[in-house]
Amino acid sequence: MRSGASGFRQNRRMPSVTPPRGMRDFLPAEKARREHVLGVIRSTYAAHGFDEIETPVMEESSRLHAGLGGDNEKLAFGVLRRGLTRDDLARAEEALDLADLGLRFDLTVPLTRFYATHRSELPAVFRAIQIAPVWRAERPQRGRYRQFVQCDIDVIGEAGPLAEVELITATTAALRALGLGGCRIRLNDRRLLTSMLDALGFDRDDHAAVLVTVDKLDKIGRDGVVAELRERGFTAAAVDALHDLVARPADPEPLPSGAASMRAVLPDGVDEALVQEIAALAAAVAAAGGGEVDFDPFLVRGMGYYTGAVFEIAHPDLPYSLGGGGRYDGMVGRFLGADVPAAGFSIGFERIVDLVETPVDVGSDAVALLHDAGTDPARLVALKTALLERAGRVRLERRPRNVRPLLEQLAASGYTRVADVSDATVGVDDLVFRPLH
Amino acid sequence: MRSGASGFRQNRRMPSVTPPRGMRDFLPAEKARREHVLGVIRSTYAAHGFDEIETPVMEESSRLHAGLGGDNEKLAFGVLRRGLTRDDLARAEEALDLADLGLRFDLTVPLTRFYATHRSELPAVFRAIQIAPVWRAERPQRGRYRQFVQCDIDVIGEAGPLAEVELITATTAALRALGLGGCRIRLNDRRLLTSMLDALGFDRDDHAAVLVTVDKLDKIGRDGVVAELRERGFTAAAVDALHDLVARPADPEPLPSGAASMRAVLPDGVDEALVQEIAALAAAVAAAGGGEVDFDPFLVRGMGYYTGAVFEIAHPDLPYSLGGGGRYDGMVGRFLGADVPAAGFSIGFERIVDLVETPVDVGSDAVALLHDAGTDPARLVALKTALLERAGRVRLERRPRNVRPLLEQLAASGYTRVADVSDATVGVDDLVFRPLH
Repeated sequence: MRSGASGFRQNRRMPSVTPPRGMRDFLPAEKARREHVLGVIRSTYAAHGFDEIETPVMEESSRLHAGLGGDNEKLAFGVLRRGLTRDDLARAEEALDLADLGLRFDLTVPLTRFYATHRSELPAVFRAIQIAPVWRAERPQRGRYRQFVQCDIDVIGEAGPLAEVELITATTAALRALGLGGCRIRLNDRRLLTSMLDALGFDRDDHAAVLVTVDKLDKIGRDGVVAELRERGFTAAAVDALHDLVARPADPEPLPSGAASMRAVLPDGVDEALVQEIAALAAAVAAAGGGEVDFDPFLVRGMGYYTGAVFEIAHPDLPYSLGGGGRYDGMVGRFLGADVPAAGFSIGFERIVDLVETPVDVGSDAVALLHDAGTDPARLVALKTALLERAGRVRLERRPRNVRPLLEQLAASGYTRVADVSDATVGVDDLVFRPLH
Repeated sequence: MRSGASGFRQNRRMPSVTPPRGMRDFLPAEKARREHVLGVIRSTYAAHGFDEIETPVMEESSRLHAGLGGDNEKLAFGVLRRGLTRDDLARAEEALDLADLGLRFDLTVPLTRFYATHRSELPAVFRAIQIAPVWRAERPQRGRYRQFVQCDIDVIGEAGPLAEVELITATTAALRALGLGGCRIRLNDRRLLTSMLDALGFDRDDHAAVLVTVDKLDKIGRDGVVAELRERGFTAAAVDALHDLVARPADPEPLPSGAASMRAVLPDGVDEALVQEIAALAAAVAAAGGGEVDFDPFLVRGMGYYTGAVFEIAHPDLPYSLGGGGRYDGMVGRFLGADVPAAGFSIGFERIVDLVETPVDVGSDAVALLHDAGTDPARLVALKTALLERAGRVRLERRPRNVRPLLEQLAASGYTRVADVSDATVGVDDLVFRPLH
């Protein structure tokens, strides 16, 4: 049904019946499962003292493209300015000139704008929940969508590690509540990465570029990282030193995060106070019941805005991370003139939702009434209304020739009992229910 | 802060701190109130046997601009095609040529696409809940937003009045659950409007144009409607007959919907079977506990796609409608080749949310722990974690110099008790709580 990319006008005529490329419809069972998982996450975060907020799906292009979104900025969908003339179109140098708004590609950029707008109405330390879709014009591929939900918590206004400890503890609590206990945290710190690259002998000017390559460690492996660093021509002695370092842990597992074991995998000359600080954060998370923390000296996390601790969460049975976050002290201040400390943690909802067993809603009694096509609607809906006084859910269903598929569908949707409506059915007490299973 | 409309490049540089024009942020108290109201609506509709689904916020431009959205089509935000070249921009004849996607302006157009995509996976009669934002590039004005939430239920696959009775009954039940009991339904039928205009002597070709003016009755009054019809030059005798008709009810209130009282306000010659059918629908709604129905012979409802019953719901204390809907049998079939009957009801969520008293969440025990700036984060979050075994919500708060505003803020957010954490606090049992009020 999809029309080819054959000119402007044509693809306005033949609507396809599929959702837009890379975007998904959710049928009732999947929608119920998603809402169930979101409900658990939302209520856990609220229990931990966070408050939910909402921002519009669009922000001004100027804000989305202010350099805070890293590579994701390029993936922002632009929304056309209103009232564009043919002249405007001809004059534009690039498509973005025609967009004054764009769809958000993450929830962090909108949060900083929200905080700048409403600071005077918010508590000194603001703990925000954001559960909402974001959009990225990525090349569609398995497991990557152009519209997907993010679940973020952020603490704005807290400079100390209390923010990180609360974020990590609340996140592991939410995952535990979803049946994903036993997650482990990987922890590092951007300042430690700087200190480490200094100690290895990389030029300060090269740090950002070196980290782009180090960030690929999970994908291309140790040898790949070292080869790429050599190829890109960074200080050879520093690359050699890094090579020794990445080879050091015999075990591919990340390391426990005590200060002593951290030092064992770090080059000489890294900032000792920082090592102590990170070890203390890991210990605080464990003491607060937030779970086990592993120190990972090569954890970078792509976004340029991180300034301190960075972390990711993973389940031992799964090959991918379930979420991540970190401290981004400079970002809110960019729009306020004053520096405001901030840290956040984002759960990868789309990865988690498929892992969670959704219990069929057994709490409520859901009943179906089967009726013939000719039955008086007034009588049917009056019966339904009366039955709703006693049952949690009531559905009317016209009796099909073959009733079995319908009954199976009803059972799969959580309906528990069924009764037939006949001419003899005057009131609810005349209904004879049989169980659905 | 907002930069003027002075050229393309400039407004990419100076981000404003307000949300985009006509769109809103929701702070915690307002977000909680909105989620509460949505939760009541969602659970009422689920109890009435409807199933929630979700579609992407975007649809293909070709679908949004297929002539089914009426005036709202013009208000659709266009989303820029990816990979546009400078040549594409220069070649485009209008802005829409550059958009292959657009943001949905309602939930009905996406629903018809959803049904066409998934028909084989859906029950023969599909009862859908959609609760989601829509976007319209309207001129911002009080009470009109460019992003707002719609709450729709639709029945697809039921040709008989059972669909309308269930839709109306579920909607009034949702409003009642929100404390908005006593709503009244205004009912009419597009086929009756046709029959009425025939009887009055309007040309069939003029019907659509005449209805555009009749639809303004609430805004410009009877005399305004008649004056506009005269001015637009429709058959003079028919306009005179309509003038007599609109003048007929002495009382400005809509009329009860018994067949006899309907006939009293209709011209001679309208289809008697239709009058009986509408009266029966009104009676069925009342019998099912769906509320009182008033017949309104001049109710049009703007959308061109309605084919049968149309209805609006209003509260006697409020000057505006709280929602509306109707039957749109032709619309789904346009994409399927086969005719599929359908009807829907949309609640005006943004109008309702301000009317509802939100109970502060008293079910859960919410406690705040006040601490000094220097307190060990590990100890604080460990206390919080332990306390969460007993309390519904726990928030840590650094003790400010003046504690009173903070306590008031906590009480307003539903926190019920507060305790001080000191050096002497070892475990939860050492906390001494005092009530917040």
